[in-house]
Amino acid sequence: MDQTTRNPLLTAPIPMPDWLWEMEKAYADRVIVDDEEKMRFVVDIAVENVRHGTGGPFAAAIFEIRTNRLIALGINTVVPAKQSWAHAEMTAFAHAQNKLDQESLKGCMLVTSCEPCAMCSGATPWSGVERVIYGAPRFMAEKVGFDEGYKGEHWEEEFAKRKIQVVGPMLGEDAYAPFKLYTKKHGEIY
Amino acid sequence: MDQTTRNPLLTAPIPMPDWLWEMEKAYADRVIVDDEEKMRFVVDIAVENVRHGTGGPFAAAIFEIRTNRLIALGINTVVPAKQSWAHAEMTAFAHAQNKLDQESLKGCMLVTSCEPCAMCSGATPWSGVERVIYGAPRFMAEKVGFDEGYKGEHWEEEFAKRKIQVVGPMLGEDAYAPFKLYTKKHGEIY
Repeated sequence: MDQTTRNPLLTAPIPMPDWLWEMEKAYADRVIVDDEEKMRFVVDIAVENVRHGTGGPFAAAIFEIRTNRLIALGINTVVPAKQSWAHAEMTAFAHAQNKLDQESLKGCMLVTSCEPCAMCSGATPWSGVERVIYGAPRFMAEKVGFDEGYKGEHWEEEFAKRKIQVVGPMLGEDAYAPFKLYTKKHGEIY
Repeated sequence: MDQTTRNPLLTAPIPMPDWLWEMEKAYADRVIVDDEEKMRFVVDIAVENVRHGTGGPFAAAIFEIRTNRLIALGINTVVPAKQSWAHAEMTAFAHAQNKLDQESLKGCMLVTSCEPCAMCSGATPWSGVERVIYGAPRFMAEKVGFDEGYKGEHWEEEFAKRKIQVVGPMLGEDAYAPFKLYTKKHGEIY
């Protein structure tokens, strides 16, 4: 494409790593009824993201609430994509909205491997999701050096006012698995 | 492109409207020293965005602090792009990071036509910008029906702790121009 004659893009497309695409194909329209099972699935994807070196120790997924059907996956791709906003929840929202060809994810839930940061919790009401479940509490992410930001003291109450149900933390120490691998790999690399 | 054999994208690219691309070419590497002048430039872009029907009444720009040189523009494209996260500040961050080919905008400032919402203020520290100036206060956006979200009672103090300077509101009633046109057009269309 000739950049001198065609418009450049306002935001760059973020490519999907092969392993994530294989996983999305394998799990297309998969129904996972149990919330803990949904969370184990998402935490496993966060582990895979670290294992493949395709981003930080975070993953997310969008499920339809009524049917428990998987809509789309998301991963943290900040460093490979060179985009500071490319957190797992944000790429899950963007990917799901693209697949459904609509900006509202009404009737859907966000399943995220870690408590959403200030940006991602701010983005949640705009996405239209009506339920959020998260795995690791923020201190687990902070323990390995991630900054979660300031989202206000009353964020869960504000979600409740907007009829967005929040459930978490979940899985206890099992939610720490992506961070554990990240620390190990980080220790090896640097 | 055959979607059955090639990976789809994790996040969709957002095309740049022709008028914005023309403006970006016209203002390439332009230096605007005065902050109020930077803000008038950005508020005008928000007006253009409404006038062209390419998104909501919001625009943003990234300038290099040391040189006052324009790096990249952003606009609200939520409805046309069908992406709930595509606020002006977010597309400005994404576009600037893409142009600079790095995820950090250290040494840069965000100029935004309106006080950042919960998502965009959460995204600001992750972007690396060291200064934020905004035009319209949130009540102006809320007056025409935009939800700004919950970003906590102490967001400006939290920015200060992170050494991000915040200046605003600016331009007084002039910052209301994009909303005024939006209300007028909205009234015409619906």
